[in-house]
Amino acid sequence: MTDPCPTGHADAADGELPGSVAVVGAGVIGAAWAARWALCGVDVEVYDPLPTASRQVESTLEAARAAWERLGLLSRETGERSERAHAVALGEVILTSEVGDAVIDAVLIHECVPERVKIKQAVYAEVEAAAAPDAVIASSTSGIRPSELQAEMQHPERLVVGHPFNPVYLLPLVEVVGGSQTSELTIERAMGWFNAAGMAPLRVRSEVDGFVADRLLEALWREALWLVHDGVATVAEIDDAMRLGFGLRWAQMGVFQTYATAGGEGGFRHFIEHFGPALQQPWTKLTDVPELTPEFIATLITQSDEQSGDQPVAELCAARDRNLVDLLLALEANDWGAGRSLAALRRRMSAAG
Amino acid sequence: MTDPCPTGHADAADGELPGSVAVVGAGVIGAAWAARWALCGVDVEVYDPLPTASRQVESTLEAARAAWERLGLLSRETGERSERAHAVALGEVILTSEVGDAVIDAVLIHECVPERVKIKQAVYAEVEAAAAPDAVIASSTSGIRPSELQAEMQHPERLVVGHPFNPVYLLPLVEVVGGSQTSELTIERAMGWFNAAGMAPLRVRSEVDGFVADRLLEALWREALWLVHDGVATVAEIDDAMRLGFGLRWAQMGVFQTYATAGGEGGFRHFIEHFGPALQQPWTKLTDVPELTPEFIATLITQSDEQSGDQPVAELCAARDRNLVDLLLALEANDWGAGRSLAALRRRMSAAG
Repeated sequence: MTDPCPTGHADAADGELPGSVAVVGAGVIGAAWAARWALCGVDVEVYDPLPTASRQVESTLEAARAAWERLGLLSRETGERSERAHAVALGEVILTSEVGDAVIDAVLIHECVPERVKIKQAVYAEVEAAAAPDAVIASSTSGIRPSELQAEMQHPERLVVGHPFNPVYLLPLVEVVGGSQTSELTIERAMGWFNAAGMAPLRVRSEVDGFVADRLLEALWREALWLVHDGVATVAEIDDAMRLGFGLRWAQMGVFQTYATAGGEGGFRHFIEHFGPALQQPWTKLTDVPELTPEFIATLITQSDEQSGDQPVAELCAARDRNLVDLLLALEANDWGAGRSLAALRRRMSAAG
Repeated sequence: MTDPCPTGHADAADGELPGSVAVVGAGVIGAAWAARWALCGVDVEVYDPLPTASRQVESTLEAARAAWERLGLLSRETGERSERAHAVALGEVILTSEVGDAVIDAVLIHECVPERVKIKQAVYAEVEAAAAPDAVIASSTSGIRPSELQAEMQHPERLVVGHPFNPVYLLPLVEVVGGSQTSELTIERAMGWFNAAGMAPLRVRSEVDGFVADRLLEALWREALWLVHDGVATVAEIDDAMRLGFGLRWAQMGVFQTYATAGGEGGFRHFIEHFGPALQQPWTKLTDVPELTPEFIATLITQSDEQSGDQPVAELCAARDRNLVDLLLALEANDWGAGRSLAALRRRMSAAG
């Protein structure tokens, strides 16, 4: 019988960990990459010119550690890995004041700087001046095509997109996208390392703007913005529609497998033949992008603040992580979806201990 | 301090149950409405002309009962409510061979027939010929405007949309939408009954095609179809991108609250100012609808079957329900989102017992 949940990653976490990792840009994503590697026992050097970087890295490490403790991957008392897991020490995270110092010894370098091609290309020039010629540079871009990113590099074959999802230390998905000059070896090395970190690399087979995930994310996000813009729903109502309804389906089955359960005994065939035509109805044609005027931005921010109250963002993130940990544990117990990536990581850490 | 998860339904389940309910159309949705009411102790009369209806109703009742047992709302041994819950018997579900027989005693009538205005209007004429004049008729339509549905009714003031989400016996969301002729009393009665059934009614403040949820669903679904159509990703890869990544965020926080955690210490303001402009980039403009040619439909079905294997749909639905139950229990333990609706239902059943 075919596996009903064919996540291509059930046997993930069987690659080798990278010897050492560098992170350039310690914002929300960069700091969380550093945390995931450190929790896996890999040393990480981090470069970021902002004075807030060290606070970001420290608070992210703390949050990641708490989450892994609740997952049972670290012992709660010592912050070291529990005996059920393995005994290798946590990796060290060191902030450096020069890009060159951060990348010089790294075999894997995460670029996590703002989403502008020129800024990223300038960073690659700095990185290449100091890094080993075969170090892999993985861009965390959400949607810029790697062919564009690598266009001016000395060693373009080592540039790959490794697009993770916040919080990087908990969500297994990482999109792996090669550009026209990316070598197959680079892609294989990156996939192996991500596997070893307990992630589920999804190799994107065709190089398009936005890859797979952000295509889907942006489509929904655009529609959500219109609903607020037109006064059809508030920010909180839209979030309720998701977290009390279809979001719970997507978390375990995505959209197609959900619809395979929606057609009754006829399955997906019945569904698509029956409901496909609804797409032609007017409610799906509102597809321009609303203009982000100062007034509209103010509305969004007001409604967002109303929803989350005067909670500091850190508390909201902590609530998110608590929920994610428990959703992952529930799915692990059912041998399903993201729970399988967690199970694979747990096996890997036990084997290493 | 404001509640960070302001689901407007934390105190749900405080309404009165309806005396008796009718369901017209016993497909996936109609049968699941019947199951939810029966599990709440309400008798349900069901009309459907198809010979498969009784099998659909029976198998749905069985699945719903198994799910409520795992939620701890029914005792596992007897199928009756556990002592922790309450002792009222399950409601009876009776199939009738005439619409009139089904609706004559009902105070709430769910219309769950195909999504065509003419079919629904013909059903309303039959229903109104037999039902009490003040019985509420709740359409399960996913997106047809109630003003259109009620246009030819004798008592249009009692027509309201009550749009639930599959599986109706597990997901708390139900969109409540009134048309131009719907009375406020009708909306209040429907909201109260849905609350009493442990659901989280979301009153949609503006009558638009597709309401709130299907606007969002269709936007993502359309983009997903394009990705398959253009060979960028397969059905399974798209589902993986959701269930291993952002689906887990949306299940607990929706889209806006998720983004409030993505901007670092700057919160939602930082996020929207920083990432809003990406919407203008070309990857969000692929917004036409792909033509559902026989070839494209065949591709979708083949990939969907490959993903879910030779699993009967019933097994896939059982896996979905197991996962949903455990996700709901995990969120209940964290007093968050859909878990709060479950907690409210549990309190209600304890109080009634």
